[in-house]
Amino acid sequence: MRSEVGTSRVEAFSDGVFAIALTLLILEIRVPHATPDHTLWAGLVALWPSYVAFVLSFFVVLVMWVNHHELMRLARTVSYPFLFANGLLLLSVTFVPFPTAILAQYLATADAKVAVAFYCGSFLVNSLAWNLLFATIVRGRLLRPDIDAATIVRIRRAYVFGPVVYAVATIAALFQPVLGLVVNASLWLLWIGFGYHSTRQDVR
Amino acid sequence: MRSEVGTSRVEAFSDGVFAIALTLLILEIRVPHATPDHTLWAGLVALWPSYVAFVLSFFVVLVMWVNHHELMRLARTVSYPFLFANGLLLLSVTFVPFPTAILAQYLATADAKVAVAFYCGSFLVNSLAWNLLFATIVRGRLLRPDIDAATIVRIRRAYVFGPVVYAVATIAALFQPVLGLVVNASLWLLWIGFGYHSTRQDVR
Amino acid sequence: MRSEVGTSRVEAFSDGVFAIALTLLILEIRVPHATPDHTLWAGLVALWPSYVAFVLSFFVVLVMWVNHHELMRLARTVSYPFLFANGLLLLSVTFVPFPTAILAQYLATADAKVAVAFYCGSFLVNSLAWNLLFATIVRGRLLRPDIDAATIVRIRRAYVFGPVVYAVATIAALFQPVLGLVVNASLWLLWIGFGYHSTRQDVR
Amino acid sequence: MRSEVGTSRVEAFSDGVFAIALTLLILEIRVPHATPDHTLWAGLVALWPSYVAFVLSFFVVLVMWVNHHELMRLARTVSYPFLFANGLLLLSVTFVPFPTAILAQYLATADAKVAVAFYCGSFLVNSLAWNLLFATIVRGRLLRPDIDAATIVRIRRAYVFGPVVYAVATIAALFQPVLGLVVNASLWLLWIGFGYHSTRQDVR
Repeated sequence: MRSEVGTSRVEAFSDGVFAIALTLLILEIRVPHATPDHTLWAGLVALWPSYVAFVLSFFVVLVMWVNHHELMRLARTVSYPFLFANGLLLLSVTFVPFPTAILAQYLATADAKVAVAFYCGSFLVNSLAWNLLFATIVRGRLLRPDIDAATIVRIRRAYVFGPVVYAVATIAALFQPVLGLVVNASLWLLWIGFGYHSTRQDVR
Repeated sequence: MRSEVGTSRVEAFSDGVFAIALTLLILEIRVPHATPDHTLWAGLVALWPSYVAFVLSFFVVLVMWVNHHELMRLARTVSYPFLFANGLLLLSVTFVPFPTAILAQYLATADAKVAVAFYCGSFLVNSLAWNLLFATIVRGRLLRPDIDAATIVRIRRAYVFGPVVYAVATIAALFQPVLGLVVNASLWLLWIGFGYHSTRQDVR
Repeated sequence: MRSEVGTSRVEAFSDGVFAIALTLLILEIRVPHATPDHTLWAGLVALWPSYVAFVLSFFVVLVMWVNHHELMRLARTVSYPFLFANGLLLLSVTFVPFPTAILAQYLATADAKVAVAFYCGSFLVNSLAWNLLFATIVRGRLLRPDIDAATIVRIRRAYVFGPVVYAVATIAALFQPVLGLVVNASLWLLWIGFGYHSTRQDVR
Repeated sequence: MRSEVGTSRVEAFSDGVFAIALTLLILEIRVPHATPDHTLWAGLVALWPSYVAFVLSFFVVLVMWVNHHELMRLARTVSYPFLFANGLLLLSVTFVPFPTAILAQYLATADAKVAVAFYCGSFLVNSLAWNLLFATIVRGRLLRPDIDAATIVRIRRAYVFGPVVYAVATIAALFQPVLGLVVNASLWLLWIGFGYHSTRQDVR
């Protein structure tokens, strides 16, 4: 197997999926219908849940893209199980525009609890896919030889946070939607920090 | 002809089409309309045929992408007939979101038989395009010199399965829609196995 | 200017636009609305103008992508005027899904003449953009030094055909829509032939 | 950190987002609904605000893509803050189809002032993102060593124009929508000139 080509083609393909999923998010913001009683300005203001959902999902997918990059750097080659674990991850990424549209349309309604729980729940599935992908790299002996055990342990610990936090966010959303969103967003702040830390580790 | 550039540009272009087709699938899942009688939760549950169609088509296109990769590895250069055979294949790939939407919308209705048959039928066309592309590579003498006759025979045998299984799935769907979908899905399990086997062959 | 990077980044960007425009075409085929009087099967059959428009536009964009590749091979570097001439071309490529949707929706109606004329007219604009891009390469002295005058003359002659044939197709469509479409399609058969010929020239 | 890979992957990802945002613009032009009283031809003519919005936004995004290229050439590597400043820029790029759709739908109505102001306002945010990205490169010491202080000063001066002109355009639009659009478009003519100038600087 021409391993370099394999890794870079998977990376390019995944990047394409991340970029498209990110850009499709805007299609969920619908042009408001202005009437004599309801000006365009009022319509644009009333779309605030769409803007919140758009910005939130945009940064989640962006953080995922950065983390995917970090994860791919650990692998020296790709295997068949890897391709399908990565595919499962991409499935949950391409799914993002749907819960985002749900959030946009129902955040300001009586159905906000279900909408936020569904939104957080879909990231719970996504975070399980990340863990599966990481496990596939480690168990499939795809790691680059210069990655030491301490790095593996450090990453594994960070990855375990994902499902736990998203499960908490999902449950919290059923009682208090805003709390669910805050817990959700807190995780990617944690990941930004983690990524930043890991970059500095490498530089040293 | 600068053959390396040609092959890699076709690969990148095809990858782009696969990635976009895959990501557009999500646009077919429409946000449910909640009413006092019909909560958002009920609406999300009622979308199960959309989720089934989405996951099914996502993995079909993903498997195709992996197999396209395997096929391109056989070719040392591209020719004009190759570009158009590949174009025909991409046509049938970009078509996938449409039968997926049909399946999503009609799987839980009285029209399920037609919907599943149309879905399977569109993969029948797709599997013929794969055979055409493979024939173009072999007959156009585009094969890399290190590909031996046994590999060609093995791949040809595997490629013949496609149209046969999809024809069976299409006909089965007209009587028993669920059976049609199962036969359809069984094929990509077979292809995953085939791809896995062929990867191990290469490593040896 | 780092010319190689420039050329390849323009190529990759253009390829992306071609790939996305191609894949977005499917969004124009709308899921038919089945009723007790009008089965799904009848609905799928009634969509024939959508299938015609989809296949026609898909192959036009595919042929354009191949020809863009051929054209880029002539250039050793890119200039600012080139970037904007190429941008104008891409504008007319990203526009394609709209006349395609018009064709799909009105080909089987009393408005077919206007629909086909609009479709052909948008390719008239597109063919003028190709000529502008080619002129920008030649006049901006962006040609690779090994391209001889005979090749330039040959390509220029082929490029002049475009606007003429599309103007004829547009006018013909106003009287006889099907004739307009046939003239339209005949051009890309000519371009396939031209591209094929030019490839063989290179090999010799 | 493998800086070359980092820079090129960010470039490829950003290019993808630019290309997709550009191509999605066409989805905002809706097929007109022809009736016996209102022919298809009249419907196509009545869509002129959509064509204006499409062409305007297409060239704005195209100019941005060219300028992103110029900006990336200044950087020798990427940092975490850079990735998120770039992400913020991409957020404002993927947002473009929405104000474009607003402009298309409301330019010919009584709500034109709000529509144009919203359109110009979204580019005001975008121009602030450009300044942030540039500041991140300069302050994060990501500049290539051969970039001299004069170039930095020249670029900074050009970048300051953006927010000022877009703020003027936004305010002007509230009084005279057409004026707002003209001021808006004038800026990218200025940027084309700037880019052209900077290219010639490099060649010398």
